[in-house]
Amino acid sequence: MSDNNRIELTVLGRCAALPCRKGNQSGQILSLHNKLMLIDCGEGTQSLLRNNGFSLARINHIFISHLHGDHMLGLPGLLSTLGMLGKKGAISIYAPAELKTYLDQQIAFFGGDFGFPIDFHSFDPFHSELIYEDKTLTVKTIPLKHTMPCCGFLFEEKSKPKHINRERCDFYGVPISQYNNIKAGLDFVNEKGITIPNEQLTTPAEAAKKYAYCSDTAYTEKIIPYIYNADCIYHEATFLSKDAKRAKETQHSTASQAATIALKARVKKLIIGHISARYSNFEELRKEADAIYKGAILAEEGKTYII
Amino acid sequence: MSDNNRIELTVLGRCAALPCRKGNQSGQILSLHNKLMLIDCGEGTQSLLRNNGFSLARINHIFISHLHGDHMLGLPGLLSTLGMLGKKGAISIYAPAELKTYLDQQIAFFGGDFGFPIDFHSFDPFHSELIYEDKTLTVKTIPLKHTMPCCGFLFEEKSKPKHINRERCDFYGVPISQYNNIKAGLDFVNEKGITIPNEQLTTPAEAAKKYAYCSDTAYTEKIIPYIYNADCIYHEATFLSKDAKRAKETQHSTASQAATIALKARVKKLIIGHISARYSNFEELRKEADAIYKGAILAEEGKTYII
Repeated sequence: MSDNNRIELTVLGRCAALPCRKGNQSGQILSLHNKLMLIDCGEGTQSLLRNNGFSLARINHIFISHLHGDHMLGLPGLLSTLGMLGKKGAISIYAPAELKTYLDQQIAFFGGDFGFPIDFHSFDPFHSELIYEDKTLTVKTIPLKHTMPCCGFLFEEKSKPKHINRERCDFYGVPISQYNNIKAGLDFVNEKGITIPNEQLTTPAEAAKKYAYCSDTAYTEKIIPYIYNADCIYHEATFLSKDAKRAKETQHSTASQAATIALKARVKKLIIGHISARYSNFEELRKEADAIYKGAILAEEGKTYII
Repeated sequence: MSDNNRIELTVLGRCAALPCRKGNQSGQILSLHNKLMLIDCGEGTQSLLRNNGFSLARINHIFISHLHGDHMLGLPGLLSTLGMLGKKGAISIYAPAELKTYLDQQIAFFGGDFGFPIDFHSFDPFHSELIYEDKTLTVKTIPLKHTMPCCGFLFEEKSKPKHINRERCDFYGVPISQYNNIKAGLDFVNEKGITIPNEQLTTPAEAAKKYAYCSDTAYTEKIIPYIYNADCIYHEATFLSKDAKRAKETQHSTASQAATIALKARVKKLIIGHISARYSNFEELRKEADAIYKGAILAEEGKTYII
């Protein structure tokens, strides 16, 4: 990531559970504020990270949506590799509680220790929770509608500070010690008691960005309040509408349904993924989504999208 | 496999444990007598099988050399996929006993059933055992020298029947009911009591082939009796000789050591693999092996070798 203020999403795997020549199982990297956050970790994710030029050592936060194999079977290998690479600092994993049992079994089987601590943060997949927060970012869960408890994740930047207009601040004699207050939006009162309005001393902050990962899920409008007006959502679109019956049975979405959600939630960018291996031409899914949500994007593996 | 009498080896992964841009973790397919046998199953094996055009449904025998993750972490995903594809018949897995515990945990975690039975055949990794036999083939374990109990596998065709020379048989009046005896090498005695020597009625059988998989292992001449005169061996060559110290510590082989074993065992073809990700140029390992065993082959992923 060249620009630290930019949020970038790299899709590692865009396919549903069955292995397929056109892609890999679920996994993506959100790169923001000098952090790499891994979202889901299907089999082969560690190789895809390497092949896409990500340093494994920089991954300290992993979010797992649910416990179907195609979303988490890459974890044991990735964690084992991090141990072999000499990782010592903790890694944080955010997932339904049952994943801890699974990881504990893996750890016991492979010798009792990956070589570094795992900070496991379980969440209740039936309610939205704030699961991560730092100075610049929050992550909340988005309960989805699937054959097993499953959550999406909403990554939201906090309001960003305004930019100091250095020339104006110098003109009005604002001391550097006041800059943080000015950036936060306060006006400046000078020695003579005169108030200089904040707008004269600053230029506006960049808008805080909002990205939502929504996989796996049947069509549900309950997620709209969470993702409303998001800068980008990744929504699963496992099936074409002609297979809507199968989508309903397996609690997945069609491309049309993904697009309908994006339209109703007025999101600014829609990327569809988690495509079923049954389709020989993924372009058909993009077209179906595009007919409802103009500009819908079919996820390309290894491609980086700017949020 | 176009020719049912041909034995073909397809290398899926040629790299050691760490993920690497130049290759995948261990896994290979031996295709013989209309069967596909999977040897080791590192992470991502199911995708590699698909990408190389193998039908997952045709894999009914899986041989696991030892329980390091890079040799078996692809199993849960592969078995889960076979279940999703509707497999009903049993799959046979040949491995050290501890793998069963691991698989039982996986099965419990993923709902108590893959949807088909697993015939688990455990072997004692400290002694060579006959672990598989059918009409045309045997498989024996080869105890190796590694940081954990580990076995290679020796695949040996049984002696093949001779070919009937139909013209000669007709000339000497051999009834078709006698053909199996003739193919097995018996002479024919006609109605007048005259013996027709088998050599006059047959052409020689093709030689029975012998393939050995030797990974992971430090240099050990104890394996020579098992692999002696084999048509082909795949031997690990994790390191270059300049890293022999590291090879010894981790109980792996250098390319020179792999070649020395191949030379002493008078094998007809040597393929080296399980290369460490530390080397940017794998060709150096081939050259090192070639200096001792002329014609040593560096495994290429996705390539099929005729045994």
